[in-house]
Amino acid sequence: MIVELISTGSELLLGDTINTNVAWLAREMNKLGYTVAFQSTIGDNPARMEECFRLAASRADLVVCTGGLGPTQGDITRPSLAKAIGLELELNHDAERMVKAFFENKGREMPDPSRREMMLPVGSEALNNSCGVAPGVAVQADGTTYILLPGPPAEMKAVFDESVRPYLTKYFGGQGVVKSHRYAVYGLRELELEASLMDLVKTQQNPTIAFLIKNGYIELRITAKAMTLEEAETLLAPWDAILRERLGDSLGRRLEKSMLELVTDALLEAGATVATAESCTGGLVGKRLTDMPGSSAYVQGGVISYSNEVKHKVLGVPQDELDTYGAVSEQVAKSMAAGTRKLLGTTYGVSTTGIAGPGGGTATKPVGLVYIGVSGPEGTVAYRNDFIGDRESIRQSTAERALYLLYQAITGKK
Amino acid sequence: MIVELISTGSELLLGDTINTNVAWLAREMNKLGYTVAFQSTIGDNPARMEECFRLAASRADLVVCTGGLGPTQGDITRPSLAKAIGLELELNHDAERMVKAFFENKGREMPDPSRREMMLPVGSEALNNSCGVAPGVAVQADGTTYILLPGPPAEMKAVFDESVRPYLTKYFGGQGVVKSHRYAVYGLRELELEASLMDLVKTQQNPTIAFLIKNGYIELRITAKAMTLEEAETLLAPWDAILRERLGDSLGRRLEKSMLELVTDALLEAGATVATAESCTGGLVGKRLTDMPGSSAYVQGGVISYSNEVKHKVLGVPQDELDTYGAVSEQVAKSMAAGTRKLLGTTYGVSTTGIAGPGGGTATKPVGLVYIGVSGPEGTVAYRNDFIGDRESIRQSTAERALYLLYQAITGKK
Repeated sequence: MIVELISTGSELLLGDTINTNVAWLAREMNKLGYTVAFQSTIGDNPARMEECFRLAASRADLVVCTGGLGPTQGDITRPSLAKAIGLELELNHDAERMVKAFFENKGREMPDPSRREMMLPVGSEALNNSCGVAPGVAVQADGTTYILLPGPPAEMKAVFDESVRPYLTKYFGGQGVVKSHRYAVYGLRELELEASLMDLVKTQQNPTIAFLIKNGYIELRITAKAMTLEEAETLLAPWDAILRERLGDSLGRRLEKSMLELVTDALLEAGATVATAESCTGGLVGKRLTDMPGSSAYVQGGVISYSNEVKHKVLGVPQDELDTYGAVSEQVAKSMAAGTRKLLGTTYGVSTTGIAGPGGGTATKPVGLVYIGVSGPEGTVAYRNDFIGDRESIRQSTAERALYLLYQAITGKK
Repeated sequence: MIVELISTGSELLLGDTINTNVAWLAREMNKLGYTVAFQSTIGDNPARMEECFRLAASRADLVVCTGGLGPTQGDITRPSLAKAIGLELELNHDAERMVKAFFENKGREMPDPSRREMMLPVGSEALNNSCGVAPGVAVQADGTTYILLPGPPAEMKAVFDESVRPYLTKYFGGQGVVKSHRYAVYGLRELELEASLMDLVKTQQNPTIAFLIKNGYIELRITAKAMTLEEAETLLAPWDAILRERLGDSLGRRLEKSMLELVTDALLEAGATVATAESCTGGLVGKRLTDMPGSSAYVQGGVISYSNEVKHKVLGVPQDELDTYGAVSEQVAKSMAAGTRKLLGTTYGVSTTGIAGPGGGTATKPVGLVYIGVSGPEGTVAYRNDFIGDRESIRQSTAERALYLLYQAITGKK
């Protein structure tokens, strides 16, 4: 089935907001086996929005639209769709129940304009929104199915996960699956990579091969479409060996699981706990380690020791180490990791100390120099890193590498 | 002039890449006074891309397209546009000179496929790319102007800044300017905000008023269009007073400066230092406070007290407070803020404790309930917040609000 994704909101046309919704939705729809062929963005302009729905109906079987479902005057998606498909708006009793329940659960009186959120095109299904007021909408007309989702990302995702997936399965059954294997390719230019695989690129059908230039590597994506995941995996199966033979050492790690997922699994499996001691990352490692729900099972906490005083007084880094080697040193990284592990009584301690820039670099300790320490039952080690990039990317790279080194320490794996 | 922005690339339709190019281009085109009315995204499919150009010609005066200008088989934007507008591709001598110069400057031999990058629709102007190989393209046909830009963001920006701006000025002169003033509104719901301004929203013409729900606040944007910046500012001038009268204390800061910049300025001006004590945010407040270069002048560090044990043992939160009120309570938020301030010897302490979800909520302490404590020379206070959204947005909202409350405590300003 051909899908068009429509994003509404003048903030997108003004460039004030980066459209993360559409990427998320595209990924999810592709995973479900749908073909996203068009994405359109339209402002809060009734005539253009109506026209946009008409155009989508002419070229897509399924139209998924985000934004403009709130109760204000600027929220015009419901009436614009109704006009485009020639249906009246009516009070939808399921939507009424959902909106009223939201306010009852919060112990708040329902504001009068929220009645707009119950007025759906005749024959619509209201889709429950567990994260906000406005229900989603699903309606079919003239052979096209329209799904309207709220604009705030958390609400959009909640309605999609809870209601759109079951709706699609109910009406359209399985669409097969699209499965990609993604690899990082290092040290080759795009043309060289293409040249190595040119015969495959030219004859590709299923799976298909695509390249995408990323910071520091090229993403090589090989994608199969099939009715079941097993069939897709069967189509993909021979390709790992083919790619390894063609590309040798340039073919780097598979990009499927995030480093955070790997670390979390490893900590849970080992029944281990962790504490952080952060200087240059200022809390980012702790933030990332607690990104996963349920992280209290393995994260005790940590110390953000941005100043040397905190490194010494709270973490117990010896003053003479700070004086002799400086805060950005292997020795201090080790003492920080061991210090937080001891203070918080955890299985592992992980530390960061470095120069994130843009100022503060010297000839011997340039911007991008970061030591990462890991302390655990097997002892305490620290690793030197030389990152490039701006302040934000050096800090993000540091946190990512810290997770990687922690993962290695727990599992002994590379 | 009506503008359509087209983004090409299957990675966008697959959701593998978030489209930051289109937001950047939309912002720049709006600044130049153009009206971006449509954005479309299309994959590497020749027939659909051709149709997309035809549709754009029917509704826009100026079409700006990104991506697909490279030398590989997947780069089909030049031939697709040529076909859509009925022009042949020919060797463009400016493009030839630019591509050859790129490789000469790098001391590399030009790969043969790069010849594709010199083949432009008849009558095109080649636009120099100082960041990469592929020149941009500008061509006019049947009253519509088409501009093709490379996909990698750095190349796209370079071609736009160096060549597209002068091209637009040469052919279309000044288009006037669009100027927005943006405010953060705290503590009002979107409907309450709209109700306060309903008569203005209903009669808005120039300037226009728009709202956007953000993490922790609502952005109120008032936008004027005029031939010069001075005229736009004259149109906007009365509105600051009107908004302040209508919204009183709810009208927060102007968003021209980020909350982080304001906090940083306030801390530096007061010669004050700060320490964090974070539970639900897990380090995010510390990370944000250290986002600015030079933050060691006012950030000492902090304690990530994810577990109750760390709250008690490291921060000195009384055990009976934890037992009586629970970790997510006004009392514990205050003790955490005061505790980190004392432990790290800073002017201010700021704390967060709450339920980020998705699990862990109860009837009396639902997901989204967060207490933020601020301790300073004037005493220690804590504020209750009820955020909605998913785990990430609740944590981001908490950090944003914590910066805001810290700013208020330092400056006494709203």
